[in-house]
Amino acid sequence: MAEKVDVMKAFYRLLHPRPAVLVTCIDKEGRSNTLAISWISPVSREPPMIIISVAKKRYSNALIKETGEFVVNIPSDKLVENVHFCGTVSGRDVEDKIGKAKLTAKPAKVVRAPIIEECPAHLECKVKQVIDCGSHDLFLAEVVAAYADPEAFKEGLWDQKVARILLHAGGNIYSKPEEFFKATGKP
Amino acid sequence: MAEKVDVMKAFYRLLHPRPAVLVTCIDKEGRSNTLAISWISPVSREPPMIIISVAKKRYSNALIKETGEFVVNIPSDKLVENVHFCGTVSGRDVEDKIGKAKLTAKPAKVVRAPIIEECPAHLECKVKQVIDCGSHDLFLAEVVAAYADPEAFKEGLWDQKVARILLHAGGNIYSKPEEFFKATGKP
Repeated sequence: MAEKVDVMKAFYRLLHPRPAVLVTCIDKEGRSNTLAISWISPVSREPPMIIISVAKKRYSNALIKETGEFVVNIPSDKLVENVHFCGTVSGRDVEDKIGKAKLTAKPAKVVRAPIIEECPAHLECKVKQVIDCGSHDLFLAEVVAAYADPEAFKEGLWDQKVARILLHAGGNIYSKPEEFFKATGKP
Repeated sequence: MAEKVDVMKAFYRLLHPRPAVLVTCIDKEGRSNTLAISWISPVSREPPMIIISVAKKRYSNALIKETGEFVVNIPSDKLVENVHFCGTVSGRDVEDKIGKAKLTAKPAKVVRAPIIEECPAHLECKVKQVIDCGSHDLFLAEVVAAYADPEAFKEGLWDQKVARILLHAGGNIYSKPEEFFKATGKP
């Protein structure tokens, strides 16, 4: 290994590739929007909690603050072009961004924000706390419903033969997980 | 796609596989420990901030609270057995867990917690806020140093020919990213 060098400018890219998801939300008038993010993590099993981080300048940031709810839609790698479209176009500039991304909004179970039907799994979320982190806001949210395509997600694991989740490396560069393998824990 | 079914019990697994890292910390007496986690995300570019989530029952949870600092060590997929060892053995039960995992602790640049030399990249972190999420605590931390092997991490991207980051699917099941591909954003 070469001597390590400072990478502070791109520190966050060390934690990529990581799952890319489509977050859906609505404005006060009930108009839907979606944005692509990969700064997301589960943070608690009980109660079921996740965080997402959204840049303050993004259109959806204000919508999520306003309504206190959103849906995390988890795409397979087959939806990469739809996701990248959502990651590069702002809902401020286009009407019906979900439709323009060739995706379909359908009603969710609990929250008013819609699901994106083409995605094989969804987490409906209610915001519990917003933490100002500087360039981004951290949304700490409770998961109020979670459902998935049973052919793609089985016994707590994605079936790699049916659906691989999309991973974002940075910019327009993506990946997906290789076949799973088992560890023994014997180094 | 089949009709979607409730997966609330395993909601967090929908966001896996995701990067697995080794977090290092120290106790008041300066003894080092490490734990494997994958509930981690960047949350802000400016200032540079990340979150990690650590179960309250884990030994390192108390150490990080006590000292307010930790290091995120990012392993390549080649270190899977060392990482899985760290994910299944508690520092409460073994002396010198890092050594027993066949890994090497070396001094960090800013914080007192050590780095794990075999990992190709490190994020040194200082805790800014601890948020009680139930089963887990969320640690919101500022990144005070970030450095990487320049042969493995180039211009903000992992060179897939040199080092692939380790992804955790759940339990003893791991993966790594496939070759990167480019999106056009034209769905």
